[in-house]
Amino acid sequence: MPGEAAMNDRMTRQLAFLVEADKLKRILRRTPLADGSRLENSAEHSWHLALAAMMLVEYAPPGVDLARVLELVVIHDLVEIDAGDTFAYDPEHALSKSARERAAADRIFGLLPAEQGAGIRGLWEEFEEYATPESRFANALDRFQALLLNYRSGGGSWTAHGVRRSQVLVRMQPVQANLPELWPHVLDVIDRACAAGLISPG
Amino acid sequence: MPGEAAMNDRMTRQLAFLVEADKLKRILRRTPLADGSRLENSAEHSWHLALAAMMLVEYAPPGVDLARVLELVVIHDLVEIDAGDTFAYDPEHALSKSARERAAADRIFGLLPAEQGAGIRGLWEEFEEYATPESRFANALDRFQALLLNYRSGGGSWTAHGVRRSQVLVRMQPVQANLPELWPHVLDVIDRACAAGLISPG
Repeated sequence: MPGEAAMNDRMTRQLAFLVEADKLKRILRRTPLADGSRLENSAEHSWHLALAAMMLVEYAPPGVDLARVLELVVIHDLVEIDAGDTFAYDPEHALSKSARERAAADRIFGLLPAEQGAGIRGLWEEFEEYATPESRFANALDRFQALLLNYRSGGGSWTAHGVRRSQVLVRMQPVQANLPELWPHVLDVIDRACAAGLISPG
Repeated sequence: MPGEAAMNDRMTRQLAFLVEADKLKRILRRTPLADGSRLENSAEHSWHLALAAMMLVEYAPPGVDLARVLELVVIHDLVEIDAGDTFAYDPEHALSKSARERAAADRIFGLLPAEQGAGIRGLWEEFEEYATPESRFANALDRFQALLLNYRSGGGSWTAHGVRRSQVLVRMQPVQANLPELWPHVLDVIDRACAAGLISPG
């Protein structure tokens, strides 16, 4: 890190973390941009979720703290810098996801001053554990945004990997549970995607 | 928009806006990623600012509302979908920036339901007007993040456009004013960048 002489150790660690976090811009997801021009990366995806949280918070369960949701979505994918993006429809890879991501959290959040690293790790665990209203809303947005981009891009990871209707329905359960007002739209998109051959029947 | 039948007009407009916002992922800035592999886009840049706000809020002026800062940085570049990224060191282009961005705000925020569009436009104007502590902190982060990436990538937009030391110092004034604890680090980076020939003297 440049400029150590001019900084205390705390600031040095914070800036080293922010430079390390820059690598999330190079982690590619399976979902394309809406225009289908390329795959989405996890940094811009996280931004899109933050914007979606701001725009759709009126459909969240009552009392959801938007500020907390924004913090959750901003940090939720940082572990992918080491662990990579785990494809939602790959059960084998998903089995090792937890261990890979915990090791990543140790290293990446460990770059920060201890109490700050513990705080951000708490946010990441909250997102993963799906136990608070804010986490459930953030997870629902995460699922919904992928549906939107897969559909708008003309199939995305559905067609690339032969995903079936029953798999998409399971994957979208957090939307049904936590964004029920959006559920009719989800079903409609799935129907249209099936009719267009973008999602396999069954 | 698919699925209109299943949605009310309000939700249709919100989702159309979120799909339109996806285009920010294709707006390239002049600043590269820290590893120099490619230029940064404005969506992932906005995410990086949100993360920086969370990590550096202890250096913000007392009483700054982090939630408001996060909302400001998430929306601050959306107008670039129409207006493009205006290069910080191009005074001629900067002259037309305001008119181009206002027209963009009319169209893009106009996709939303009226009161929601007015709210997000208020956030954008707050960021631009630099009048609240949250706006000043967000603007300081915006300047500082570009310095960090230009330096770490080995010159970035400084070398690409022959930027001079005096220009960088002016550009970084919001950091001096609003993140004074980071200012010694900024000066140190500028000194090192000058010594390495990444910033022109004078």
